Amino acid sequence: MRYAVIGMGAIGGYYGGKLAYSGQEVHFLLHSDYKYVRENGLRVDSCDGSFSLPKINAYQSASEMPRVDVVLVGLKTTNNRLLQELLPPLLHDDTVVVLIQNGIGVEEDLEQAFPGIQLVAGLAFICSSKTQPGVVSHQCYGHINFGNYSCKDSLRFNEIVSDFNHAGIQAGVVEYHEARWKKAVWNMPFNGMTVALNTQTDLLLKNPSTRQLIREQMLEVVSIARALGVDHVDEAFVEKMIQMTDEMTPYSPSMKLDYDFRRPMEIGYLYSRPIAKAHEAGLRVPKLEMLEAELQFIESTYLI
Amino acid sequence: MRYAVIGMGAIGGYYGGKLAYSGQEVHFLLHSDYKYVRENGLRVDSCDGSFSLPKINAYQSASEMPRVDVVLVGLKTTNNRLLQELLPPLLHDDTVVVLIQNGIGVEEDLEQAFPGIQLVAGLAFICSSKTQPGVVSHQCYGHINFGNYSCKDSLRFNEIVSDFNHAGIQAGVVEYHEARWKKAVWNMPFNGMTVALNTQTDLLLKNPSTRQLIREQMLEVVSIARALGVDHVDEAFVEKMIQMTDEMTPYSPSMKLDYDFRRPMEIGYLYSRPIAKAHEAGLRVPKLEMLEAELQFIESTYLI
Repeated sequence: MRYAVIGMGAIGGYYGGKLAYSGQEVHFLLHSDYKYVRENGLRVDSCDGSFSLPKINAYQSASEMPRVDVVLVGLKTTNNRLLQELLPPLLHDDTVVVLIQNGIGVEEDLEQAFPGIQLVAGLAFICSSKTQPGVVSHQCYGHINFGNYSCKDSLRFNEIVSDFNHAGIQAGVVEYHEARWKKAVWNMPFNGMTVALNTQTDLLLKNPSTRQLIREQMLEVVSIARALGVDHVDEAFVEKMIQMTDEMTPYSPSMKLDYDFRRPMEIGYLYSRPIAKAHEAGLRVPKLEMLEAELQFIESTYLI
Repeated sequence: MRYAVIGMGAIGGYYGGKLAYSGQEVHFLLHSDYKYVRENGLRVDSCDGSFSLPKINAYQSASEMPRVDVVLVGLKTTNNRLLQELLPPLLHDDTVVVLIQNGIGVEEDLEQAFPGIQLVAGLAFICSSKTQPGVVSHQCYGHINFGNYSCKDSLRFNEIVSDFNHAGIQAGVVEYHEARWKKAVWNMPFNGMTVALNTQTDLLLKNPSTRQLIREQMLEVVSIARALGVDHVDEAFVEKMIQMTDEMTPYSPSMKLDYDFRRPMEIGYLYSRPIAKAHEAGLRVPKLEMLEAELQFIESTYLI
């Protein structure tokens, strides 16, 4: 299969790099790193073994790229409007687009823009960052779960999972809605609260007031999932997430990194959309609503 | 009448100073400023006309003070436990204690500690601060409303109001519960939110997300007051408070100043107590609860 990667940051660079290193044909669309990568290739410094790709298929424009069987989207959702222009040159009739992104509603919106498109959600559990042009630093974890949103070709879907595993990535298959909402149970409290209180996951759980608040926010996410009829997102899962986070090393979620570097935060798909879904279902989620308002305020203090 | 002032900061210094300047007998209990004030007296730099009191009745210990007819308490509520020791030497059988303090429940707690005590709430609308030892800077406003909590002697109550007015302070009389809860409608959102988002009142109202959040938090306060059967605290009052704040100059409430100077914040009487009253009435106030948790977290980052 032929792969394309849009958004070669910490996510696209790691997964695309691993696939290319395993021998897959991968075409990378680059933006600011283009010149550097064209000359120097891509390097992945990884806890699981570092590697370099001295020469990769690098492009500056989607229109120069070939049509592919699978597109991996590693963009921040704040840039998803770009997909309107970036995707069409890459698509043939059966292309599968994998959105390795955070949040609720990304597939829905893309389906509306590209009716009939075959979409898969990629839920990555990874700590990685792009430290300089052409260099991805992979600190820990790395497994990815795929949730089938609208891919009719189950053979191709399975082939993607198998290609990832073959490339040394632990890849699994999960039910789409359950997976997105389970991730939201962790993402919604911790991404926003680490920004709102300018802190890390461990300190939020050490303070009894915020520990309780995090739990209540998780339960609000559960209440939305339940109102939407999503299975297996329940109180027991909330306790599991808190326990898991207790055992993690102190961690800054991606939104906290965006805030630290004064980049746009993914408020839309991480907060506004799931909260809108709650309201459509006649549900109030006041602590998530308040968190969204605080994030909007905070972002407005540094973005024009 | 003979007055005593406990807590000679921005509040006690201003009101006690005005009373003394008007010719009333006022005895001031001092702490850190004692030495300076004993030698240099008290100065009030005021938008309404500055004045100095070169010599005031200054004490370092309550036990050295005479018994008085009226005690004005200008302490931060975070120090209210001190009243257990400071009040008894000042009280005779008919002493009236005026708590010029923020929050809900201060009179209740003091009544429990001193059964039968005559208490009056003093609700000050004033921008003032103690800028250096013995110097109070009064920037604007200054009027005070008195709410009778448990003062049986209505003649004395009226005399206090009249003494304040005679001293050039605009003083009025309000229904106790209505006054405390009306103040909470403004205090609970703005004190906490200016700390949580490290900002000022005007910016919270300029941002549409936080403007809406402030309104919702005010409505939560209204819902508690209503559940407790307090009259005249309603949606119309919420709109009035928002409009009033729109017209104010950018303002840092007292809790924001406490935060800026890394002093303890009045979380107990401003948040924990009114929220507990909501819960006792079977009511949830999720946005105020979340704000309280954030404030507890923030305070724990700088207080031991």
